[in-house]
This record gives sequence, C-alpha cells and structure tokens, in this order.
Amino acid sequence: MSTIQIMKLGQGVEWALHACVHLAMAGPDRPVPVASLAELNDLPAPYLNKQLQALARAGVLTSTPGARGGFSLARPPERITVLDVVQAVDGTEGAFRCTEIRRQGPMGASARESRTPCQIAAVMGRAEAAWRAELAATTIAGIAGQVEAKVPQTPVRIRRWLAERVS
Amino acid sequence: MSTIQIMKLGQGVEWALHACVHLAMAGPDRPVPVASLAELNDLPAPYLNKQLQALARAGVLTSTPGARGGFSLARPPERITVLDVVQAVDGTEGAFRCTEIRRQGPMGASARESRTPCQIAAVMGRAEAAWRAELAATTIAGIAGQVEAKVPQTPVRIRRWLAERVS
Repeated sequence: MSTIQIMKLGQGVEWALHACVHLAMAGPDRPVPVASLAELNDLPAPYLNKQLQALARAGVLTSTPGARGGFSLARPPERITVLDVVQAVDGTEGAFRCTEIRRQGPMGASARESRTPCQIAAVMGRAEAAWRAELAATTIAGIAGQVEAKVPQTPVRIRRWLAERVS
Repeated sequence: MSTIQIMKLGQGVEWALHACVHLAMAGPDRPVPVASLAELNDLPAPYLNKQLQALARAGVLTSTPGARGGFSLARPPERITVLDVVQAVDGTEGAFRCTEIRRQGPMGASARESRTPCQIAAVMGRAEAAWRAELAATTIAGIAGQVEAKVPQTPVRIRRWLAERVS
C-alpha cells in the first residue's frame, strides 16, 4: 500500500512570508541577521533560520556569512511571489497523490485506458493549479505595499529598529 | 508556540472519490457492501469502511445495516460535489492557519491595526478559496459521465459485477 502523502502547511510558511515582507521593507542596503528577523515576530531564531536557509537554497534569499552577515532578498520583491516562498519552504509536490487505484481490482483500467489521466486526479490537479495561480499572482512587494498603505510609517519604523539593533 | 497545522490529503480522499463514482455508476437500486467497493479497487475494506462512515456522517452517503446492507449515495450524484467528498473525509479546515504573529514582537500590530485581516493570511485564504471553488465545480455525476464517455461499457460492467457478488 502506498504511503500516505502529507502536505504540511506549518508555521514555516507563515514565518517565511513575514520575514520576506520585513526584508522587503528593510530595503536592500544590508543583510538582516536572523536574530533580528526572529525578534520582529517573537519567533525562535534557530527554527526561523531553518526556513530562511531553505529560502536561500531556493534562490529566494541570499545568505551572507560573518559578523555583518544575515539574509537579504535575492531579487527585487516585485519578482518574488508568494508561491515562490511557499514552494521553497514546503516543496513543490501537490497535496493529492494519485496512486492509480483505478488500475487495481477486477474492473481495473487497462494500460490503454490509463493513458488518459484519471478524471479524479484531473479535478484534484485543477484545484491545485488554481491554488498555485492565486499564490503566484501576489508578490512580496505587493504585500509590503498593502501593509504600508494601511500603516504608512511601518517601513521606516522597521528600518530604524533594525539599524539600532546592529549598531 | 502554536502546534503545527497539518493538512493530510491521504489516500482517504482518493479512495472515497472512487467509491462514490462507483456508487453513482451502480445506480440507486440497492446498497453496495463495503467489501464489494473495496474489492473494486483492491483496497483494504476496514480502512475504506472508515472513510465511507465519515461520508455517511457528513450526509454524502447513506449506510444501511444488515445482511443486505451497504452504502448508497444519500442524494443524486449531480448534487454531490468533489468538495463535499473531500471535506467529509478531510475536514473543512484550511491548510494554512494564521497564528497572528504580526501581533508579536516590538513592531507588533496593535489591536486596532489587527482589525483588518493580515495580508498574508488574506492571500493564503484566496488561494484556498480558489482550490475549493474548483472542487465544488465538479460533481460525482460529472466524473462518472466522463468515465462512461471514455469507456462506455463501464457502468454496465460494474452493475453486473456487483450483482454477481451479492447473489
């Protein structure tokens, strides 16, 4: 029997998205230490670091080592979508895994009949494509812009707080 | 720290959808024993029974006890959507759980600022709504119809096989 496929949307996604939005508001001038990003949302730094390392491996963030090191966005926030972040943290595998049970049993579909996708797998695939499309339609810049529109002093306050922490 | 939210789309969903499509093709004349539904896809009956009981509790299937008992669709397959089945098996909770980390930390959003939804939770919510909308747009009748269009003798073969098994 195939193993159960699990899609875990844990806090990794929530934390990673908040960190990316903070990095967008912080601006590109200098890397931000993970301790600062963690403190901004009162998160445990070693666990947040794990998520940010995944983002760096996926090319969403750049990791700069050393005393003045930290994380930065690897490209402008207009070019980082929410889907980029979610997939970097959680992988690209969909939640539904077709195990082709239609081929099993006395009425099992033949090899020829199975050349076209199972209609059940197809509808689950369409649903996941719709989910990904929504996430791909929103960028980190877009979110940062919406936050700023609501509370205009947020980017300035974030930059000031970050500057005070590393000086 | 909040617990990790897990959305498990295991084989429960795959099995349940196939069973419902088989029930649609079997027609409403008599309940189908879980052993027959399990054998149709070479699935373990006790585990499939668990999923079908969940479908019965959700009002998607009717469970008839006794020697001539089994499961039937609780309403016409045109009125059972893929979303109905998925939510009956896997629950209605979304995959993403907002734990309001924006309220935490030195820059934490105030109670007033938090009256409008977090933009990150909002985009995850839109993505999940798109996913549900796709699943709600496909019915069990629709899938059964597509299968029959591809391999027209399927419903007849299924009904004949089921009839032979209980006689």
